[in-house]
Amino acid sequence: MPLQPHLVQRFVDACGEQSVLADQSECWTYGFDNSKQHACPDLVVLPQDAKQIQECVQLCRQFNIPLTTRGRGTNTTGAAVPVQSGIVLSTERMDRILEVDRSNRNMRVEPGVLNSTVQKRAAEVGLFWPPDPGSADYCTVGGNLACNAAGPRAIKYGTCRENTLEILAVTGAGHLIRTGSATTKGVVGLDLTRLLIGSEGILAIITEARLKLGAIAERTDTIRACYQDTQSAIDAVVSILAQSALPCALEFIDEGSLNLIRGQETIALDSDAKAMLIIEVDGLTPAVDADVAAVLEAAKNPGCVDLKNASESRQREELWRARKVLSQALRSFAPSKINEDVVVPVSQLPALLLDLERLSKEFSIPIFNFGHAGNGNIHVNLLYDESDSRQAAAARQCLNKVFDLVLKLGGTLSGEHGVGVSKRDWVDRELNPEVLSLMMKIKQQFDPDGILNPGKVLPNLAVSD
Amino acid sequence: MPLQPHLVQRFVDACGEQSVLADQSECWTYGFDNSKQHACPDLVVLPQDAKQIQECVQLCRQFNIPLTTRGRGTNTTGAAVPVQSGIVLSTERMDRILEVDRSNRNMRVEPGVLNSTVQKRAAEVGLFWPPDPGSADYCTVGGNLACNAAGPRAIKYGTCRENTLEILAVTGAGHLIRTGSATTKGVVGLDLTRLLIGSEGILAIITEARLKLGAIAERTDTIRACYQDTQSAIDAVVSILAQSALPCALEFIDEGSLNLIRGQETIALDSDAKAMLIIEVDGLTPAVDADVAAVLEAAKNPGCVDLKNASESRQREELWRARKVLSQALRSFAPSKINEDVVVPVSQLPALLLDLERLSKEFSIPIFNFGHAGNGNIHVNLLYDESDSRQAAAARQCLNKVFDLVLKLGGTLSGEHGVGVSKRDWVDRELNPEVLSLMMKIKQQFDPDGILNPGKVLPNLAVSD
Repeated sequence: MPLQPHLVQRFVDACGEQSVLADQSECWTYGFDNSKQHACPDLVVLPQDAKQIQECVQLCRQFNIPLTTRGRGTNTTGAAVPVQSGIVLSTERMDRILEVDRSNRNMRVEPGVLNSTVQKRAAEVGLFWPPDPGSADYCTVGGNLACNAAGPRAIKYGTCRENTLEILAVTGAGHLIRTGSATTKGVVGLDLTRLLIGSEGILAIITEARLKLGAIAERTDTIRACYQDTQSAIDAVVSILAQSALPCALEFIDEGSLNLIRGQETIALDSDAKAMLIIEVDGLTPAVDADVAAVLEAAKNPGCVDLKNASESRQREELWRARKVLSQALRSFAPSKINEDVVVPVSQLPALLLDLERLSKEFSIPIFNFGHAGNGNIHVNLLYDESDSRQAAAARQCLNKVFDLVLKLGGTLSGEHGVGVSKRDWVDRELNPEVLSLMMKIKQQFDPDGILNPGKVLPNLAVSD
Repeated sequence: MPLQPHLVQRFVDACGEQSVLADQSECWTYGFDNSKQHACPDLVVLPQDAKQIQECVQLCRQFNIPLTTRGRGTNTTGAAVPVQSGIVLSTERMDRILEVDRSNRNMRVEPGVLNSTVQKRAAEVGLFWPPDPGSADYCTVGGNLACNAAGPRAIKYGTCRENTLEILAVTGAGHLIRTGSATTKGVVGLDLTRLLIGSEGILAIITEARLKLGAIAERTDTIRACYQDTQSAIDAVVSILAQSALPCALEFIDEGSLNLIRGQETIALDSDAKAMLIIEVDGLTPAVDADVAAVLEAAKNPGCVDLKNASESRQREELWRARKVLSQALRSFAPSKINEDVVVPVSQLPALLLDLERLSKEFSIPIFNFGHAGNGNIHVNLLYDESDSRQAAAARQCLNKVFDLVLKLGGTLSGEHGVGVSKRDWVDRELNPEVLSLMMKIKQQFDPDGILNPGKVLPNLAVSD
C-alpha cells in the first residue's frame, strides 16, 4: 500500500526528490532478493549519507513504518525482502571508498561499495580484504557485513568478523554510533562491532566501515585431489589441517556434483573419483613450494586416486571453472533448488554426507553437496520442481530432516548465508530459549520500536525474564 | 563485613562446606589482583560446576550481594578486585580439560584451567591455542576470555575473540546459556560469544569454553633488528606488514628500555641502537627460510644499524630473555609503576613515542615503552614513587595526558589489559554516550540486578534512551 503523499513528502524532505522512489513499478524491483521471495515495499529511499539515514529512521519511528535495508540483494535467505512492507532503504548511492590507509592496512568505505571494487582498490596497494563470497562482483560490503559473509578464504583469513575494525551505524533508535576502533586490537567496553556484523539489519544500519586488509600473496597454487570415497577425502581434510601449512581454500565436491561436472566435459576426471578436494596454498613463491609439498603429503592417503598441483594459471582456471559450472549445471538439472549452507565439525562431514545420501533416497530428492570443507561448511542443494506439489512438500520435509541431522552432529544451520526469513522457523531448534530471549532483548535496546527489518532472524517468541 | 551465618550456610548448602571460605584471613587473599588494589570480600566460594555457580548467582540475586568472578588474579586493572565487597567466586577448582578434539582442532575446557596447561595438552597432539599473555604460566583461560587476552602472537593468530568457538556461561539472571557452536563458522543469531569475550565478568560467568586450536609450526626464527631512531623502526614495521610473509611476533623496544637491558648485560647491543624490533616468523622449515629472507629485506632501511636472524635456539632465548628482563629492571628502577597498554594505528607509533618523550620531560616522570608494534599496542610504563605525593600526582596528570594523546592519534585506551577499575573513569572519553548507553542496557539484560562485578568497565552514568 503506497504511503500517504504527506508522508512521502517527509522522506523527500529528508533525502531529496531524486532519492525517493514512490512509483509502485519502481518499488516492485526492490522487493526481491536472491531468495526469489518477494514483497513490494511502499517506498524506496536511496540516502546519500548517515544524516539522511538518521532522518529516515526517525520518520519510521515516528510513523511506525517497517524499514528494511538492502545492498544489492544477493543474499539467499529473504533477509532483504520487506516482508512487512514499509520502506526499503537501499545503500546503492553510498558507494564511496573514503580512505585507503596502506600503512595501517585498512580501508574506510561506505556500505554500498561492491566487494569487487574494494578488492580492486586494495590490490592497487598490494592488499586485499579476505571475505570473498561467490557474488563478490555484485554484492555490497554493507550486505557482506550484515550477513558476516565469508567464502573459501575464511579457512585461513577469517570472515567479516575477523576483518572489520570499526563500524559507524544508525541504530533503530536513530542514534549514530561508532563501534570498535581504527586499530587491530582493542578491549574498551563490549564488542558491539561483532554484534552488528551478522545481525542482518535488525539492530542498526551500517553507514561506514573500516575494513582490515591483508597483504596479497606473491603466489597461489591450486591442488586437485580426487578420492575413491567421501571418508578418504575428509580424512585428507583432517590431515591437512593437522599440519602447519594452512591452505587458503579447502573445498569439497561430492560424487553427484562431480558427475554434473563430467557432463559439462570441461575437465578430465578420473573415473574412480567419487569426491574431490580443491586446495589452495598461498604465500611467497619458495614458501608456497614448501607448503604445497606438505599439503600434498597430507592429502595423500590410500583412498586418493588423483593428486595434482595445478601450478599453471590455465590449470587453476580450469579447476575453478569446474567448480563454478556447478551452479549452472544444478539450475539445468531441476527447475527449483533449495541451497543451504549448513556447518558440522569437520570430522562429522562423512556422517553428514552419508546421511544426506540416505535422505535423498528416502524423499526421492536429488541432493548435491559441495563447499568449504576446511570449515565443515557444506552447501547442500536439494533439487526438485516447485510446481509439483508432491515434490515441493517432499523437499521441505527432507530439508527439515537435514536440519535435524546437522544439529544432531553438533553443527549449526548456517555458516555464511544467515537466517533471514528462510531459516527463522528453525532458529529455536539451535538456540536455547534463554539465548533467544537475550538476543531479543538486545534487539529491543538497539531498536526499541521494532522497525528494523521486522520478521527476520529471531522468531516471534515472547521475551521471558 | 562478614555475611550473616544463615546466609553463609546457604552458600555452603549450594557448594559444599569445603568450597566456601568465610574466615576473614582467608578472604583477605582473594581481595587482590595484579593491580595491587585490594578490597576484602565478605565470602569466597570455589564452585565445582555450572550448577553450583547458578545457585550462587541465584542467592546473590535474592539477597542483592555483589559477585566478582576471578581466575588467578593476574590482570592489572583491578577487574578481579571486589570493590563493593560481597562474594568472590574463584574458578580455581574448575580446572579440567574436558575434551581434546584433534580432528576438529579444538579443546573443551573449564574456566579455571591455566593457559600453560592448555598449551601443554594441545602440544601433545601438535596443536596450540594462540592467546599467549606474559602470565601464561599462571593465568586461567577464564580470565583470558574475560579480558580478551592476547600477547605477541595476536599479530598473526588473533586474540581470544578469534580463537574461541563456543561458550557456556551463567548470566547475572542465573540462566545457563550456550553461545556460538562447535564449528569454525556460524551465523545463526547474534554473536554473543564475542560479546562475552572481553566483558570482564559484568555480563556472565563463563563455565566452559571450546577453544579453537591451530597447528604448531615446524620452525620459528627470531630476528633482531636495531635502528638509529624510532621512525626507522616503525617504517620497518610498516614495510614488514605490507608484504605477505606475516610474522607471528613483531615487538618494539624503545631507547630507554634498551638502556635498561644494556645495564643488565645479558645481550650485546650496538651502541647506535635507539630502538629494537624482535620479529618472529614461523612455519615449515623451507617456508620459514623464504619468509625470513622477505622480512629481513623489508626490515632493512637506511636507519637500520643491526639486523640478525637468531636461528639458533640459544640466540632466540637470549633475545626473549632480554625482553623479559625488562620487567624486573623496571621494578628496580623505581618503586611504583603505572603499566598501560594503549593502542594507536601503527603509522602513528612514531608520533606517540615522540610525544611520550615530551610528556616524560614535562612531568619529570621516566617513561619506558615496549610492546606489540605489529598491532600498534604499546606498553607505556610510567615510573615514580607512590610515597612521594608530588611524584604520584605528577604521574597521574601525565597518565591523563597519555590517554588524551592516544585518543587524539585515533587509538584506543586498552589493547589487551582491559578497563577494570583503573581505566573506568576514562572510558567515556573514548566511547560516545549512545554507545555507552547501549552497553549499559545490554549489561542490564544479562544482569538485571547489577550483581556481577559492579563498579567495573562501564562508568556510572544514567542510561538514556
